[in-house]
Amino acid sequence: MSSASEISLRIKIINPTTTGITDLETQKEYAGYAFSGTEIIVTHLDHGPASIECELDEAICVPDFLEKAKQAETEGYDAVISNCFGDPAVKPACEVLNIPVIGPAEASMHLATSLGHRFSVVTVLPNIVPMIENLATQYGVDKKLASVRYVNIPVLDLREKKKLINALYREMLGAVKEDHAHVLVLGCTGMLGVAKELEKRLKKYGYEVPVVDPVGASVKFAEALVALGLKQSRLTFMPPPEKARTGFS
Amino acid sequence: MSSASEISLRIKIINPTTTGITDLETQKEYAGYAFSGTEIIVTHLDHGPASIECELDEAICVPDFLEKAKQAETEGYDAVISNCFGDPAVKPACEVLNIPVIGPAEASMHLATSLGHRFSVVTVLPNIVPMIENLATQYGVDKKLASVRYVNIPVLDLREKKKLINALYREMLGAVKEDHAHVLVLGCTGMLGVAKELEKRLKKYGYEVPVVDPVGASVKFAEALVALGLKQSRLTFMPPPEKARTGFS
Amino acid sequence: MSSASEISLRIKIINPTTTGITDLETQKEYAGYAFSGTEIIVTHLDHGPASIECELDEAICVPDFLEKAKQAETEGYDAVISNCFGDPAVKPACEVLNIPVIGPAEASMHLATSLGHRFSVVTVLPNIVPMIENLATQYGVDKKLASVRYVNIPVLDLREKKKLINALYREMLGAVKEDHAHVLVLGCTGMLGVAKELEKRLKKYGYEVPVVDPVGASVKFAEALVALGLKQSRLTFMPPPEKARTGFS
Amino acid sequence: MSSASEISLRIKIINPTTTGITDLETQKEYAGYAFSGTEIIVTHLDHGPASIECELDEAICVPDFLEKAKQAETEGYDAVISNCFGDPAVKPACEVLNIPVIGPAEASMHLATSLGHRFSVVTVLPNIVPMIENLATQYGVDKKLASVRYVNIPVLDLREKKKLINALYREMLGAVKEDHAHVLVLGCTGMLGVAKELEKRLKKYGYEVPVVDPVGASVKFAEALVALGLKQSRLTFMPPPEKARTGFS
Amino acid sequence: MSSASEISLRIKIINPTTTGITDLETQKEYAGYAFSGTEIIVTHLDHGPASIECELDEAICVPDFLEKAKQAETEGYDAVISNCFGDPAVKPACEVLNIPVIGPAEASMHLATSLGHRFSVVTVLPNIVPMIENLATQYGVDKKLASVRYVNIPVLDLREKKKLINALYREMLGAVKEDHAHVLVLGCTGMLGVAKELEKRLKKYGYEVPVVDPVGASVKFAEALVALGLKQSRLTFMPPPEKARTGFS
Amino acid sequence: MSSASEISLRIKIINPTTTGITDLETQKEYAGYAFSGTEIIVTHLDHGPASIECELDEAICVPDFLEKAKQAETEGYDAVISNCFGDPAVKPACEVLNIPVIGPAEASMHLATSLGHRFSVVTVLPNIVPMIENLATQYGVDKKLASVRYVNIPVLDLREKKKLINALYREMLGAVKEDHAHVLVLGCTGMLGVAKELEKRLKKYGYEVPVVDPVGASVKFAEALVALGLKQSRLTFMPPPEKARTGFS
Repeated sequence: MSSASEISLRIKIINPTTTGITDLETQKEYAGYAFSGTEIIVTHLDHGPASIECELDEAICVPDFLEKAKQAETEGYDAVISNCFGDPAVKPACEVLNIPVIGPAEASMHLATSLGHRFSVVTVLPNIVPMIENLATQYGVDKKLASVRYVNIPVLDLREKKKLINALYREMLGAVKEDHAHVLVLGCTGMLGVAKELEKRLKKYGYEVPVVDPVGASVKFAEALVALGLKQSRLTFMPPPEKARTGFS
Repeated sequence: MSSASEISLRIKIINPTTTGITDLETQKEYAGYAFSGTEIIVTHLDHGPASIECELDEAICVPDFLEKAKQAETEGYDAVISNCFGDPAVKPACEVLNIPVIGPAEASMHLATSLGHRFSVVTVLPNIVPMIENLATQYGVDKKLASVRYVNIPVLDLREKKKLINALYREMLGAVKEDHAHVLVLGCTGMLGVAKELEKRLKKYGYEVPVVDPVGASVKFAEALVALGLKQSRLTFMPPPEKARTGFS
Repeated sequence: MSSASEISLRIKIINPTTTGITDLETQKEYAGYAFSGTEIIVTHLDHGPASIECELDEAICVPDFLEKAKQAETEGYDAVISNCFGDPAVKPACEVLNIPVIGPAEASMHLATSLGHRFSVVTVLPNIVPMIENLATQYGVDKKLASVRYVNIPVLDLREKKKLINALYREMLGAVKEDHAHVLVLGCTGMLGVAKELEKRLKKYGYEVPVVDPVGASVKFAEALVALGLKQSRLTFMPPPEKARTGFS
Repeated sequence: MSSASEISLRIKIINPTTTGITDLETQKEYAGYAFSGTEIIVTHLDHGPASIECELDEAICVPDFLEKAKQAETEGYDAVISNCFGDPAVKPACEVLNIPVIGPAEASMHLATSLGHRFSVVTVLPNIVPMIENLATQYGVDKKLASVRYVNIPVLDLREKKKLINALYREMLGAVKEDHAHVLVLGCTGMLGVAKELEKRLKKYGYEVPVVDPVGASVKFAEALVALGLKQSRLTFMPPPEKARTGFS
Repeated sequence: MSSASEISLRIKIINPTTTGITDLETQKEYAGYAFSGTEIIVTHLDHGPASIECELDEAICVPDFLEKAKQAETEGYDAVISNCFGDPAVKPACEVLNIPVIGPAEASMHLATSLGHRFSVVTVLPNIVPMIENLATQYGVDKKLASVRYVNIPVLDLREKKKLINALYREMLGAVKEDHAHVLVLGCTGMLGVAKELEKRLKKYGYEVPVVDPVGASVKFAEALVALGLKQSRLTFMPPPEKARTGFS
Repeated sequence: MSSASEISLRIKIINPTTTGITDLETQKEYAGYAFSGTEIIVTHLDHGPASIECELDEAICVPDFLEKAKQAETEGYDAVISNCFGDPAVKPACEVLNIPVIGPAEASMHLATSLGHRFSVVTVLPNIVPMIENLATQYGVDKKLASVRYVNIPVLDLREKKKLINALYREMLGAVKEDHAHVLVLGCTGMLGVAKELEKRLKKYGYEVPVVDPVGASVKFAEALVALGLKQSRLTFMPPPEKARTGFS
């Protein structure tokens, strides 16, 4: 992390879950990809799911996420990242906030698309596969998606790094050889610190193929948007009409 | 409504808003399209938005909607309809419930697609236009969507029927003449009792074109699924993994 | 079948073939899915193919089908269903008649699309595979079609139920495991009385996946359109210009 | 027409209508585009519609067209062209015959696609517009289709050349200026002898744009296939299973 | 080749490589597919790559190709073909020349699309696979492309005919059985004299499927365009603005 | 520009033209968007076109561009940007170099796609419109492209800023109001220093819509890729096979 005097850009990473134990590791991963002038602060929810593994989890994290996101804007952050590959809460937050809101899947998919002919995503559980395919369709890059695969490991068990890397390697090899993927994307923001190791192992066995870490992709998109003075279009994400809304302050 | 002895099928309509004043009119509209053996009960939320007009509204209605939906299943209802053209909460509810969950937009779009070469939707506000286009893409019928237009009337002002019909007619005419729509869809479940009047007026001026009411389309889809013993696929909507989820009982 | 006093809706099912021996079984299958107030009458052609298994069969059934369809309208039927998964004669009949004309493939594909992420069709012979893929494209749901498979059993041999179910099960399993189908569709209206058995067997082996019977789907679409007062758009299916047409009364 | 000694290739043009009065003019138009060694013979139906202007017309021309097509094969013709831009009867004929069967729309659309960024078709009546759009989708070139327009002149009135050319010019100008078409296609095989005149007029007013005549396109496709020893794939168009087929000898 | 008195059409085939040793064989192959009145002349580059096997090769052949193409136009040729399945230099040549410029991939893909439900291309090396898939997308026929496969033989080793045919057969069989191709395309203009042999072998083993030779397809497109008086649209390929251009005379 | 001690990343901008007079202004524009640790060096070609305005210009700039690009890699640059919205030479350079090669159109289109529902590009001349549409298709984001418009000003006249801004504003307004664009992209890397002014003017007149400058987008993509240790996939862009290549050292 940079000294205060050098800070030119502050990004709030919001874990859309109530699990704070990975906050520090997450902060380090984001900071490792950030430029020296970027300050990264990670936070998590008070109310919501322990992890994000289905439509239900994505839906119920939104109310408290929006609270945390509005608070980040009030505190002067330059951008907010929803720290989950399902990009939960990104769309309503794009309406509510006046600073850029970045989804790791959207950033990763665009970066991956620009690097080769087709990409595959390897995620955690089968529950999420149709959700990620729907994201690709909605983001307009579905023609570039070779496949979505999964390692069948729940989010909260991802910290056994060796097991994780082996499982990812196996699916990535399948993606390249069977699905004709030319670029690979980690389909979960909790697969920390494994992208480069996988890239190396794939290269060793003959496949020189980029592995996109959604943590890195989203911090770069956030830095880029802030530096370019850009944020989500107000024609797509109009400010919400004023009205009574309870269960959401 | 049918007498108890004839009831063969019970559908719970959940207004994903806190506004109960339209419940009775909504109940009548649904019942008007239902078969004689179908019982229609309408309910609304305790916590959530007063109306649904943006991504934010769609997101924050979900937690209480899911409570109401689970309750409906416990009470023995055969199907649940989310009474909003944005189909809010439908996907998580499809995971959580073991009975069919129907979204009016999805039902309308499929019915409309089957009736002609291309369809247009006329909805309430510009905020919702990209959301409806995204739904069409996600439901796989975007190639059949001619356009999404809007009357620029907020949901809670829809009850001035004459004004509403005039505004809808103007946009429907534009959809047919400029966007080459062959079928029209009311893009809000609060445009009650106007479909047939519009169909008549369009025919009078030379355009014999079906106008699909999402209320009618969704009750027919609900009845069809129950009668056929079908519900959402458990390969797409797997049961949510067990875990701690706060802010949602 | 309902007593005459309860009949509110009459649907004529036209077998687009000269084979009447399945009329009774077909009538029972349709009636089994219909509401109590729906009367189902099945008829077949005087001139045409013995079964529908290729483009040629689909083409030559049309002239007599249109005769039977016009007769049904004259007799006061509320809707007509072309009893074949190739939806033969549906388009010209949509022009000629003023009541809804339903194709089982179109109804099934829309219902299946609404139930899950992607669907597969299992049909009779390889000859029909490209035809069904073309239908999905034309109906605008090709992006939701995982695959079309076939059991390699001619239509007229479908009545060996045990053999049929085993062959369908094998292909359905392949569709789920290899083609990533989440919803299954019987690709022939002559696969009578097998949908629920297949659904059960698939569930027993771990795949809780809906099996759509085109007979059920089309009768529900017919009932829905009549109840909603809808029919095919006259902008897509304009009335045929008057002119001399021989070989067609 | 060439002398017998030079004939290397014989093409039968089948008018899918009962109107023989244009046979001679049609023969001349085809022959004008053909190579010197190609013999062109035009015939018409005994039973069928007087002209092709809707789905009904396309459907009822098929039985007698197939008779005429089989006869042409028996007589030793090298290829058959269905002389209508709706390509009626082409698919069943592809199954039944062992020589190439060409549809003018398919040939024109592929040729037009290869000549520029996007093409528009100008046809006769609004009834046919969705049919031509469906053909483009089915032939896989719908992304290259800018628009389908019509002159609102019935087929049997096309022989007033001046009126026809003026109406075509007006719509072609609209296609270029409003729909961004870069290539134009005559959407009827009865618009004889006008393509080059329209090309000249468009060029005179600043638009150097090819005008594809479906007559020319289809005769060139027929010549090409015969010369290359190619015909329709037997994996797409399998020979029809043997069975009883009445109303079709 | 025809005697001078019969020549009605002259086509210049430009090998976009510096390797002239195949010019004669290439000339024979093209002439074998051409009509008797078509004169075929083959030439090659003075500067450029020895063969075309990647984006680099395609790019650096362009400057000298354009010289040769302009010279052909000056000499009175009626059309130019770029003799490579990557269609290199075709787009700039379409701008620079006033005669038709044909790419063998574009001609083959359109012809193949018209012959069956889906086609596969079998090419030389893996380097070219994404390039060919990009061409199909750009030409608007990607939905009809089943797969692109390769024999892993460099262009300059293609002249071992037996080895080539065996490798092509193996991949074509895979394309038909695994990728569901119904039409096959040779993905290199240097696979001379093998199309018919492969068609025969495939038929012998049960697959009656057309094999499109890009040499034949492109000469037929060239002949067709010249005979029809058509060439590339000047709205897509506007004449290049005048300006200084060095490294290109 | 940063002091040498702070430089962590060096990007070579290659103008694919022989016009060096804009090099300094280009350098300032890129540097203005870059992070403080990024060094920007701009160069131009010795041989090639004076500007890029058609397929011909894009093609003939490649040989010398590749020389300059290889030189940049040898000199230790971390990334190369092709300074033109047509992304000329990017694909062959991706094969030849082992450092990231960025095209401004590809970077802009992905950034724009992530900011809203649909984007429009406003470029210089009509000649380039189909080229940019082809790029969007190839990059997989064509479904997100609302339109490509042009100001009809040649590249070398772009420096009259006031005229340029007025023309861009007019077309951008048209893109928003008529083509339903929600994000705007400058379709030329020579439209220097105008993005923010246009964004302000559009906002003043009621359209709060991001204007993406391809200069900014591409420098951010370059910085992101270098920081993340990513470059183009070697499965898409395999190293060119060794062979004789003249006219290219």
